[in-house]
Amino acid sequence: MSQAPIITIFGISGDLAGRKLLPALYHLLSHGTLSPLVKIVGVSRRALDQKTLLNDTELCILEQDKICNPKGVALLNDALELITLDLEDRAGYDALRQHLDEIDPTNQRERIFYLSIPPQAYGTVTKLLGESGLNTANCRLLIEKPFGSDTESALRLIDSIGEQFDESQIYRIDHYLAKETAQNLLAFRLHNPIFSSLWDHQSIESIRVRALETIGVENRASFYESTGALRDLIQGHLLQILSLVMMERPQSEDADAVHATKTQLLESLSLTSVDQSVRGQYEGYKQEVKNETSFVETYARITLQSSIERWQGVPIILETGKALAEKTNDVTIQFKQEHEHQRNRLIFLLQPAEGISLDLLVKKPGFDNELQHAALDLSYDKEFGTQTNPEAYERVLMDAVRGDQSLFASSGEVLASWRVVQPLIDAWTQDAKGLQVYQRGSEGPEE
Amino acid sequence: MSQAPIITIFGISGDLAGRKLLPALYHLLSHGTLSPLVKIVGVSRRALDQKTLLNDTELCILEQDKICNPKGVALLNDALELITLDLEDRAGYDALRQHLDEIDPTNQRERIFYLSIPPQAYGTVTKLLGESGLNTANCRLLIEKPFGSDTESALRLIDSIGEQFDESQIYRIDHYLAKETAQNLLAFRLHNPIFSSLWDHQSIESIRVRALETIGVENRASFYESTGALRDLIQGHLLQILSLVMMERPQSEDADAVHATKTQLLESLSLTSVDQSVRGQYEGYKQEVKNETSFVETYARITLQSSIERWQGVPIILETGKALAEKTNDVTIQFKQEHEHQRNRLIFLLQPAEGISLDLLVKKPGFDNELQHAALDLSYDKEFGTQTNPEAYERVLMDAVRGDQSLFASSGEVLASWRVVQPLIDAWTQDAKGLQVYQRGSEGPEE
Repeated sequence: MSQAPIITIFGISGDLAGRKLLPALYHLLSHGTLSPLVKIVGVSRRALDQKTLLNDTELCILEQDKICNPKGVALLNDALELITLDLEDRAGYDALRQHLDEIDPTNQRERIFYLSIPPQAYGTVTKLLGESGLNTANCRLLIEKPFGSDTESALRLIDSIGEQFDESQIYRIDHYLAKETAQNLLAFRLHNPIFSSLWDHQSIESIRVRALETIGVENRASFYESTGALRDLIQGHLLQILSLVMMERPQSEDADAVHATKTQLLESLSLTSVDQSVRGQYEGYKQEVKNETSFVETYARITLQSSIERWQGVPIILETGKALAEKTNDVTIQFKQEHEHQRNRLIFLLQPAEGISLDLLVKKPGFDNELQHAALDLSYDKEFGTQTNPEAYERVLMDAVRGDQSLFASSGEVLASWRVVQPLIDAWTQDAKGLQVYQRGSEGPEE
Repeated sequence: MSQAPIITIFGISGDLAGRKLLPALYHLLSHGTLSPLVKIVGVSRRALDQKTLLNDTELCILEQDKICNPKGVALLNDALELITLDLEDRAGYDALRQHLDEIDPTNQRERIFYLSIPPQAYGTVTKLLGESGLNTANCRLLIEKPFGSDTESALRLIDSIGEQFDESQIYRIDHYLAKETAQNLLAFRLHNPIFSSLWDHQSIESIRVRALETIGVENRASFYESTGALRDLIQGHLLQILSLVMMERPQSEDADAVHATKTQLLESLSLTSVDQSVRGQYEGYKQEVKNETSFVETYARITLQSSIERWQGVPIILETGKALAEKTNDVTIQFKQEHEHQRNRLIFLLQPAEGISLDLLVKKPGFDNELQHAALDLSYDKEFGTQTNPEAYERVLMDAVRGDQSLFASSGEVLASWRVVQPLIDAWTQDAKGLQVYQRGSEGPEE
């Protein structure tokens, strides 16, 4: 593995590239994780000034890190090259191919295509990449969610990309999975015998995965109007996180085994009931998106069950929403209790801070033999320091460079996730029946 | 319950009274836990000056707390009264009785006799207390360990005290049991279902209780020469702590049920082998105690087994020693592991700081999927603040005032503990065979 790949980023002028990808590449170059010989080809529709782009990147790094190392910026500047390309113009792809072949005449370096562009363009871009012969064996395609908008469109997208790229070349990004705590979910379960022995319906009362936000849709109105909470977070992120919590022990640690085991879990899931699912919309949303008849949900809470013996009878709750009282992304394993006040819970916190917490009952200090809740805590920042914790997009980029697909979503997982929520998509896109309005800054719909 | 008992302390001029009992009474009075109407009768052989005694107490409080509240000292001064008494003179006891009856003519207040005197005097003092009629129904006797020096002497002591006092009136103090973490041991096990379900030989690999000190015998040479590590810490404290870790769930929370269940556990214990037990003496001990032929052990490590089904095959290690590298008093529950590097351990720390810690494997942050040990921690000081944590002797005094015997050792427990170590006492008091000399500040004997 050369560690000096050619990374072509489609959409280099976009928000994601500016806020995440360029800062991540800067970090990887600064720390020497990525070779200074890497080539980064930034693709945009209109011509960009590299100096302006890097100035913006520097500002973004300064905002995030408080410091910005000039050497890292210089390395990024040396590696970066900007080209223009009309995404629908085949000639541009031929020119790109010619250009990449000049950089890498013997086609020995890993060639990574990062599609940081609207998903509607995935079909066209992958088709033209293929037709111009850029889908060589040493290339890898990174794509961002959403992967379709329902089971059918996901299947079409998978088929369409699959015409040009092999499944082993496709890296479907879920940056939630690239967070340390998400990666630790599985490691934690499998390598701590005291918890692996408790990991079933006999010891576990319920499982809950939440992603709550305090902000509203902000400047993503049109995206959100065509998406909603169910598709935006539950189908993709939360079901992926859930599969790490509930999947069986994979037969090996390689990516294929992990994906097969995750898919098996996702395929075992189903809604307990469409009617019991809760959807809500925060007050003022309609005005914000300028659509007085919108019934897009900004909040969803659904309950699933698994047909796997291990999880028999364990309710699985997925909850997400915008404009709520609390910002958090966490997984709560509620263990069975003998009495009401015994609340043993294991909590994996993914955001805002990453950590693990075990809720226990201990004796309250003092002369009375009262009990009180206390938590055994592990804070990633405190235990390991913030500097050692690679940002999710650094991990995403390095895994693609190294060819490790474990943290990406396979087509089987994507399809299985859509199938889980499809009955709700069918019901919720039909009419506004049951949509509850909730106050901004509240806990969400009351029921 | 009046909360205004009469507490008679035999040995008010002694080290324990000065360092622990008077400061504890000061705290209880300062915080209003103990009524200002309490009467404290300090008994000593020679006349003492109350002002001098309280000045010494103030200095001791200042040393421990950094501050000393004058109101608390004033309350202590008001409550305290000093009298002289020859421990072997019956007339003194008659005078004491007369005095207590003057304070409490209708004999309505709890009368507590705290024997802070050498254990050799217990027999005489309890006999004379009884003969002078001070063993009334409303009195309670607090005695400090050691409770005998082997099974036979313990039995004699129990019988002799038992002639004058009922078992329900006798409070045998183990100040280790009065520490918050010790009290929490049982609460923690019984009220956290995830751990109660792991509390047996199927999940637990071994149990270890340690009390290690960095200091040597210091000014306790003659006491130590007649005691040794086995009797001083293993027989009393460590076996008591162990019984909290291993005992079955008591049928109720009352003291009798707790004692019956603890006794049952202690009676199930036996040495795996006399020969495998390790004893050591730190280099320089003989010179320190001025006995060139001393073979008293300053270090002991013994392995026990329990005949109770739940603990089948689980080795139980008790370890104590002086002049070692580390000062700690802790309980380690080692859970079974599938691989060598999986080391799930639950640690109860009793000293120097009190806390609970669960050792787990987590993913090491970074691009490699390495694992590393991390601890989920609960520090009592951090969680609850130091101020709310009553000192062990405050607890001891308040429990005696309230008539709660749970944290005291019953005669059955004392006898069962002696029986566990009796084979070692027999072997180790015979000759120096196997006694290993270890360096001061080391980890103890090598083997």
